[in-house]
Amino acid sequence: MTKTIDITELCLRDAHQSLLATRMAMEDMVPACADIDKAGYWSVECWGGATFDACIRFLNEDPWERLRQFRTLLPNSRLQMLLRAQNLLGYRHYEDSVVDRFVDKAAENGMDVFRIFDALNDIRNIKQSVKAVRRNGKHAQGTICYTVSPLHTTETFVEMAERLLELGCDSICLKDMAALLKPQAAYDIVKGIKTRCGEQVRIHVHTHATTGVTLVSLMKAIEAGADCVDTAISSLSLGPGHNPTESLVAMLDGTGFHAELDKACLHRIKEHFAVLRPRYQAFMSNIIGVETDIFDSQIPGGMISNMESQLKQQGAGDRLAEVFIEVPRVREDAGFPPLVTPSSQIVGTQAVFNVLMGRYKVLSSEFSDLMLGYYGKTPGERDPEVLAMAEAQAKKPAITERPADLLKPEWETLQAAAAALPGFNGSEEDVLTYAMFPQVSAAFFAKRDQGPLNLGRDPEAAKPAADGKPAAAADKALKTPVTYDVKLNGRSHRVSVTPVTE
Amino acid sequence: MTKTIDITELCLRDAHQSLLATRMAMEDMVPACADIDKAGYWSVECWGGATFDACIRFLNEDPWERLRQFRTLLPNSRLQMLLRAQNLLGYRHYEDSVVDRFVDKAAENGMDVFRIFDALNDIRNIKQSVKAVRRNGKHAQGTICYTVSPLHTTETFVEMAERLLELGCDSICLKDMAALLKPQAAYDIVKGIKTRCGEQVRIHVHTHATTGVTLVSLMKAIEAGADCVDTAISSLSLGPGHNPTESLVAMLDGTGFHAELDKACLHRIKEHFAVLRPRYQAFMSNIIGVETDIFDSQIPGGMISNMESQLKQQGAGDRLAEVFIEVPRVREDAGFPPLVTPSSQIVGTQAVFNVLMGRYKVLSSEFSDLMLGYYGKTPGERDPEVLAMAEAQAKKPAITERPADLLKPEWETLQAAAAALPGFNGSEEDVLTYAMFPQVSAAFFAKRDQGPLNLGRDPEAAKPAADGKPAAAADKALKTPVTYDVKLNGRSHRVSVTPVTE
Repeated sequence: MTKTIDITELCLRDAHQSLLATRMAMEDMVPACADIDKAGYWSVECWGGATFDACIRFLNEDPWERLRQFRTLLPNSRLQMLLRAQNLLGYRHYEDSVVDRFVDKAAENGMDVFRIFDALNDIRNIKQSVKAVRRNGKHAQGTICYTVSPLHTTETFVEMAERLLELGCDSICLKDMAALLKPQAAYDIVKGIKTRCGEQVRIHVHTHATTGVTLVSLMKAIEAGADCVDTAISSLSLGPGHNPTESLVAMLDGTGFHAELDKACLHRIKEHFAVLRPRYQAFMSNIIGVETDIFDSQIPGGMISNMESQLKQQGAGDRLAEVFIEVPRVREDAGFPPLVTPSSQIVGTQAVFNVLMGRYKVLSSEFSDLMLGYYGKTPGERDPEVLAMAEAQAKKPAITERPADLLKPEWETLQAAAAALPGFNGSEEDVLTYAMFPQVSAAFFAKRDQGPLNLGRDPEAAKPAADGKPAAAADKALKTPVTYDVKLNGRSHRVSVTPVTE
Repeated sequence: MTKTIDITELCLRDAHQSLLATRMAMEDMVPACADIDKAGYWSVECWGGATFDACIRFLNEDPWERLRQFRTLLPNSRLQMLLRAQNLLGYRHYEDSVVDRFVDKAAENGMDVFRIFDALNDIRNIKQSVKAVRRNGKHAQGTICYTVSPLHTTETFVEMAERLLELGCDSICLKDMAALLKPQAAYDIVKGIKTRCGEQVRIHVHTHATTGVTLVSLMKAIEAGADCVDTAISSLSLGPGHNPTESLVAMLDGTGFHAELDKACLHRIKEHFAVLRPRYQAFMSNIIGVETDIFDSQIPGGMISNMESQLKQQGAGDRLAEVFIEVPRVREDAGFPPLVTPSSQIVGTQAVFNVLMGRYKVLSSEFSDLMLGYYGKTPGERDPEVLAMAEAQAKKPAITERPADLLKPEWETLQAAAAALPGFNGSEEDVLTYAMFPQVSAAFFAKRDQGPLNLGRDPEAAKPAADGKPAAAADKALKTPVTYDVKLNGRSHRVSVTPVTE
């Protein structure tokens, strides 16, 4: 008798979020769904995180319609989403009734499993979402954001699992968004939770592949009793993405654990995304292979590219090394928050400010809010001097209560504002879209009827050359007419030319 | 107390052999040597395999001179080579005195550790090399080629280890050239050897990363008692290469095992090869990420590209799928040899012949030799019908003795032939180079004084663009004048144009 290890497939959400800047068009995912639905996954992550944002910002696609399509295309699968707890899919705290309505609508449109995390691991921010999910009879997965700091021990993570279970969570997720989870830590935390909270407590483990060690961490987590692990089909895996599904399956051979996935389905899903991936080359992460420097800086890959582009905009692209040293200091001053959306952006931006303008000469309003407790309680003590500066600059006091308790009912205001936008379709879903991203949704509503975009290159241009390598951009350029200034007999002409095919 | 795990660094040999078609120029390795020497590796693999061949075939570089340079540049390191036992670094069996002289000269020029394998795991082919290495007071590492077949069990591998130790080997290497070694198998074999042969028996494990599971296999091998594992610095790792050194180090944190490597050295070695790698893009393997199909076909990556190019030369590039089905059949007919140089090429070529010309209508002379025992004893029974065909076509009988026992002393013949070549320098090393690669060495001797080539692109062209991505070929093309046929006012002109920089 071997134990079955469940698998959550990430190819429809976190995989392309991590590898292709969340740009994959729905029409490129549709053909893989029949096989994904039959492969035998425990769940299919397909919504939440940055996908909602990318839908309306880049793809002119209604994220709620995407969810309904997945529901239709994956009739036998548990659909899973990532929810930023009281932040929902946005970057601020919402008042409880907005949380309730969002969860109701997500459930109504087909969501089954809600993975709920708070960037500060503040359990108070998670409570309302869990309650709403359970009220809908759906699966509420309480999430521990894994991070490394002098304050984070096996014991603190196990305690957090206990608190999440007290909220009524159906399962626990150990979420390693920065690939910092080493094998022994994975083992100790999973074992600790099972020992303290009972063997029947269902534990899921989510890791990224960036540092190269986390498939081993998944093995150790499984040995310690983890029930389900997250992977992505091999052709959409590795780098800042995830461990390959097929490798996970192979890894378990003979170990006393096994994953019951249909090999033929996996092969077809792999082939589908292998063909697609090169079409999104323009959005591909710079990290290929592994990056173990993260173990020292503890800065997740996505945060690095953010900070790089901020520095470049200020003409200070060469000061990234200073920012790398500044980030851990800012993080310590803020009480060692895990670095994950939105805390990663907040800490990263403040570190950039500190390097460019002098330490804490200017505080971003988000960083002030973080210091003052408006995102919740950070794991450790905040630096009193920086706290005082935040109070002075933000002209508001530090708080200790749950941030959402300070918010007034806002549904009607949101509804009225959304209703005033051209293209608003009158649905609660549209109000929620507006609530998450007010500016972007206004632009989206106005042009929604033009239909979804596909930002992948056209298949012909992306086709591998005869030698199996992706066609270089040059190949396309040389087949397309290009406009040049051409000097001919001493006179300048603007000429459109088409290269001679040899 | 934790156990120290030794590391063999592969960046100077197998890493660029697997990732960059063995093309890395010596001058590109030299700057990394000081750090490699100080990093704390148990050994540095830097010679053997295809590097000897590539030196004289592509790089106009004397492989013996390369060895002497490494000896000088790595004064504190054990230099390690891969030796194809009675085949030395060539593709045929050599008579014992040639084996003796080769090992003597390799030792004299600075080699410390000889990893000795036979493609059929025929212990008789390994004996003479081990004897020669021990006579020189060097480290003889007996190698088990890991493969998967109905005949290969933990027991057969453990037995082979026993036989190797009886020969006097100083350590055992479990060599997984095709990334087929799954975690449990790694554990069972290492544990089996330690249990049967004693805990003091030193076991090294070599894996490739192609299938994505082998870092887990290294973890399991270490848990079972492995003493040393092979890795490559992260910037020259993964794909058909190896697991990253830095990930291996991180993986062990807190596990009761640790690797004593200097982090600052590793960082500098990584940076060095990160800059170099894009310069060899033209030689880069097509496999990026992982390829788990190998578990079914058991065909190593290098063999696939060989077969592909053979098929293309015959205008049958579309028949690879048939060859994939044929390879396991041919392998079974030949008695399930492991697939590694030269058996991989022999079996692969015969499979291509079978697909193109009908099954066994034509036998390659090498395949006949394999069937008739001229490479040694294959693990299982050979197919009697195919054996009869081989006897008929090759017009020679099957043999059961050690192949080298049939060879007449050949040193003087080799010496005379080498001496007749223009550019021969009179050394025994040159005779050995000639013995390995008669045709290629003739051409090499003649132009040796022109000095080594560097086939990497010039650094400017390979420099990453400002956005951190390698400059696309297009970028270069668009900065260079290009000749076009341009129609202007109805008349055709051949014009050289320079694009307008925006």
